[in-house]
Amino acid sequence: MRYLDKINCPADLKGLRIPQMNALAGEMRDFLVQSVSKTGGHLASNLGVVDIAIALHYCLNSPVDKIVWDVGHQCYPHKILTGRRDRFDTLRQFGGLSGFIKSSESEHDAFDVGHSSTSLSVAHGMAVARDLLGQNHRVAAVIGDGAITSGLALEAMNNIGRSNSDLLVVLNDNNMSISENVGALSSYLGGIRTSPSYIGAKQGVQSFLDSVPTIGKVTESFLVKTKTRLKYLMQAGVLFEELGFKYYGPIDGHNLAQIIEVLQNIGQVKGPVLLHVVTKKGKGYAPAERESHKFHGVEPFHVKTGKPINTDKKTTFTDVFGKKMVEIGERDERVVAITAAMPTGTGLSGFAKEFPKRFFDVAIAESHAVTFAAAMAKSGLRPVVAIYSTFLQRAYDQIIHDVCLQNLPVIFALDRAGVVPGDGETHQGIFDISYLSHMPNMTVLAPRNGAELSEMLDFALGLGTPVAIRYSKEVDSNVYSDTLALTELGKWEILEQGAELAILALGSMVDKGQEVVEILKEHGISATLINPRFANRFDIEMLASLSDYKHIFTMEENVLSGGFGQGLASALACSGIITPKIHHFTITNDFPPQGTRQEIFGLLGLDAESIVRRIQEICNE
Amino acid sequence: MRYLDKINCPADLKGLRIPQMNALAGEMRDFLVQSVSKTGGHLASNLGVVDIAIALHYCLNSPVDKIVWDVGHQCYPHKILTGRRDRFDTLRQFGGLSGFIKSSESEHDAFDVGHSSTSLSVAHGMAVARDLLGQNHRVAAVIGDGAITSGLALEAMNNIGRSNSDLLVVLNDNNMSISENVGALSSYLGGIRTSPSYIGAKQGVQSFLDSVPTIGKVTESFLVKTKTRLKYLMQAGVLFEELGFKYYGPIDGHNLAQIIEVLQNIGQVKGPVLLHVVTKKGKGYAPAERESHKFHGVEPFHVKTGKPINTDKKTTFTDVFGKKMVEIGERDERVVAITAAMPTGTGLSGFAKEFPKRFFDVAIAESHAVTFAAAMAKSGLRPVVAIYSTFLQRAYDQIIHDVCLQNLPVIFALDRAGVVPGDGETHQGIFDISYLSHMPNMTVLAPRNGAELSEMLDFALGLGTPVAIRYSKEVDSNVYSDTLALTELGKWEILEQGAELAILALGSMVDKGQEVVEILKEHGISATLINPRFANRFDIEMLASLSDYKHIFTMEENVLSGGFGQGLASALACSGIITPKIHHFTITNDFPPQGTRQEIFGLLGLDAESIVRRIQEICNE
Repeated sequence: MRYLDKINCPADLKGLRIPQMNALAGEMRDFLVQSVSKTGGHLASNLGVVDIAIALHYCLNSPVDKIVWDVGHQCYPHKILTGRRDRFDTLRQFGGLSGFIKSSESEHDAFDVGHSSTSLSVAHGMAVARDLLGQNHRVAAVIGDGAITSGLALEAMNNIGRSNSDLLVVLNDNNMSISENVGALSSYLGGIRTSPSYIGAKQGVQSFLDSVPTIGKVTESFLVKTKTRLKYLMQAGVLFEELGFKYYGPIDGHNLAQIIEVLQNIGQVKGPVLLHVVTKKGKGYAPAERESHKFHGVEPFHVKTGKPINTDKKTTFTDVFGKKMVEIGERDERVVAITAAMPTGTGLSGFAKEFPKRFFDVAIAESHAVTFAAAMAKSGLRPVVAIYSTFLQRAYDQIIHDVCLQNLPVIFALDRAGVVPGDGETHQGIFDISYLSHMPNMTVLAPRNGAELSEMLDFALGLGTPVAIRYSKEVDSNVYSDTLALTELGKWEILEQGAELAILALGSMVDKGQEVVEILKEHGISATLINPRFANRFDIEMLASLSDYKHIFTMEENVLSGGFGQGLASALACSGIITPKIHHFTITNDFPPQGTRQEIFGLLGLDAESIVRRIQEICNE
Repeated sequence: MRYLDKINCPADLKGLRIPQMNALAGEMRDFLVQSVSKTGGHLASNLGVVDIAIALHYCLNSPVDKIVWDVGHQCYPHKILTGRRDRFDTLRQFGGLSGFIKSSESEHDAFDVGHSSTSLSVAHGMAVARDLLGQNHRVAAVIGDGAITSGLALEAMNNIGRSNSDLLVVLNDNNMSISENVGALSSYLGGIRTSPSYIGAKQGVQSFLDSVPTIGKVTESFLVKTKTRLKYLMQAGVLFEELGFKYYGPIDGHNLAQIIEVLQNIGQVKGPVLLHVVTKKGKGYAPAERESHKFHGVEPFHVKTGKPINTDKKTTFTDVFGKKMVEIGERDERVVAITAAMPTGTGLSGFAKEFPKRFFDVAIAESHAVTFAAAMAKSGLRPVVAIYSTFLQRAYDQIIHDVCLQNLPVIFALDRAGVVPGDGETHQGIFDISYLSHMPNMTVLAPRNGAELSEMLDFALGLGTPVAIRYSKEVDSNVYSDTLALTELGKWEILEQGAELAILALGSMVDKGQEVVEILKEHGISATLINPRFANRFDIEMLASLSDYKHIFTMEENVLSGGFGQGLASALACSGIITPKIHHFTITNDFPPQGTRQEIFGLLGLDAESIVRRIQEICNE
């Protein structure tokens, strides 16, 4: 029987010895590879953190002690150790195990997370609360070297370093965020990694300094030591020490005995402590060790080869965007592309390869990405900022204050807008129309297929003002292959001309609109289908013509408040047109759970059949 | 004749010698004190940066070279030197000179700014654009030690440090943000300041290291040097060096000869350079040197004493909030208060004094403030986060992802919501209803007077879910002194019962609504006045009763899109009630300029007379 099968909660670890835990770690890696090869999910980062998870749960006492996992996509080993092993076949599926930390799922999940770099602020808040409430448990955050470059984490470092809170930060340094790490901190950590591991180095240097004799002669070997230590001081952890942490490391993140020994030793150290642990992303599974970025998030794959099972890859909006960016880059030398640690996910790899000097991966630093882009726009370049809808939330202020205020020509490409498959609540891109539409000077566009996305990029470049283009994680559509040329601001497109009711379907909802129109036709109801293309610009002529219908329906992958439908309702109500009844099909005002896009649409009553049923009800009221 | 009178552009500086520039600096300080004592404005930070401004404009060649001033409230000396001296009597006034950097005002203003900590990202973008466009001017950013602790600036540091961009960062270190600086970086800089100034220290250490002999005997004096330098290495600038900057300093920011010499020397240094300049906030004006936080932003004052001219201080919403917080803090031990470098501005000084352990000033780090608060809420505390409306924009994602997702009881107190006097475009708090209302689980409240603000704080505490309370920079009102008890979610209040039309006025617009109702009465028009109190919760009963009116008018200090009025229009249109015509009085979809609140309302047609006129027009259409 595997050790794995005997571990149903952290307490079950306590009786194991190091060799047994090492065996367990191996079993957990096999389990992860097998399991994720079937369900898909995050793999490489989880393989890297198996030993840290075992060591933390061995040394700490969760859930009394709080272990705060950053980002969450490194939480699978933690989930295995906290009684959720049996649910891994449901990972990231509708009603199944979350791929992220989720406190509703287990008392061992201290704080919900999905976005990167929150763990230090969370751990600090928990440590302060513990002290105020007179409790005395331990608080530990586990954060990667990719996540630590985000402004949120750096702000937290600055606050923690100056506080007296007892708090442990485990820096999981795999020299990787999702793709390659960038930035000075990453390079700094690289410097440390290449120097010999030395626990408590700083204390050593301190006492060394105190012991330097200032009278009398010294020997040659002493000077060798001086030089070595001086060099060491310039590398290991001094940056963290200067920021107020007691720094320990770097230690080998796959040497369980060492991690446990250090965790036990530093358990009594007061104040903020940073333990620097070096791990290998993809550890233990050769294909993932070789190409860890490909195994960050994976579709189901063959364990033997690491190759994906489904090779029948359809063209997505992301693909279209990536291809078009190369074309635009060739045509216009002013075009530069910026991403925040997502060169592949956003489709910019091609552009990066073709125009390396005009491509900027700023690491997990969405706020900087936007202000940096604004300054480039002000200087005469034409930046395209490609960031997922949910992550661009991190730059809300910068878009208003640094881009829109000066009406600068920055184009935002928001992938993963609307309902996002698999990731669940934290990643839904259902707020962008609301958070962008009210910004002065900002035009928000939503293409219904790849051709329109391409055209919108051209249009946005021509416009020379802030533009956001939002599109979902979806394959390109050919439902209506002809497109009306996009040449005029706020010009909508009529796709079907009907008589009784009008449907305005935004972007990815056009295909569903077409389905709905077809089904309604079968029921003898004649509907107009409009593709507004602009989420926050209204076609005055078409607006007036809407009074011809008894009912108007809007469809969008966004929450109701501040969305397209609400803007339309208000525009109509203010226009003084005798307003027909309006009904909005939107994401209800909550965080949709994980599942496929189809499952979530079904859950929300946004599948074609439910929409038709609701339309019929409304028309018959 | 003063030197000051001869300086109309930076070129006029070039012929001056050091003593003349020193005289000029004195004249500029006198001018600033005299001028700001009449208009009000930012004083202490501007007095501190006079010498830096002269030195930069002497050594660089603006506008070809780009000088990027962070935050902007340290830009007065720069404005004096770039031909705007004569406009200082209009400072911060309607149609007058902006208190911040504004590129529409002068070609020497490189990039608009008002929010803190954007300068490093901006300078980086400009440096990269320069290189791509084959230009070769210099780019310099001037940032304070308060501003550098923001996540945006730290993200930029991480990116700049790893780049090869030629770029100068002048760190203006006055050991102060608006109030006292907090955090590890601040403490780190303090350590440097107390060590001797030593230009090029790091290079010295490097060559020293290379020269250490590893064979042969050495002398005692060599070891003394070793020890001293080692200690130095541990203090001066090593943190910035580790982040990839070439560090110079600290130098005296009031020694013009030294600043100019260093600027000239480092002009040829390649890559990112950080020059650490120590200044005194309030330099040259005794009252401001003594109490620099009081002279950060000032009302008109007596030059001789530094005392404000207008001592007739009326109770503001801020005062009410501050007082109520102390009361709540006494009543409920779980209540903690968090601010981001604004203990006085937000009214939390009293709470801080009364409950120092439960008060947290996280420095300019709004994102961290919110996630930190979320974790405290998750741990059983009841955090109140007090941040100005415009600055809370920096934490949009954290409010959604860390507070609303888990429905945590964090209360947000948004001061300076709506139209903000004096500061202009960058500081308008006109987006918060739009950016908060669509967040799941978030309740947005707007009190019409201090009593209601107090009641709303109690209500929010009782609710135990995310709540935002927004109020303007305005004196407390006693127009309707009786308040309807706030006990039920989404319950609105009727203040005047009329027959023909209904006005729904949100928060600070209630008083204006009352004025409008009175004037309408004089014109024989009978209007209902409703105080909705909730910006995003609709009173179902009252909603139904609105169909009794021919016209409905909404009034709010927020942009149209995503605001209260639009939500109401949509709710009505969807309800199927025969909808009366709706008209929204909101901030038009642009950035209102600087001026008094009255002036801006007038400009936007939101003064009572204009509103009445428009209502009459609409009713007569």
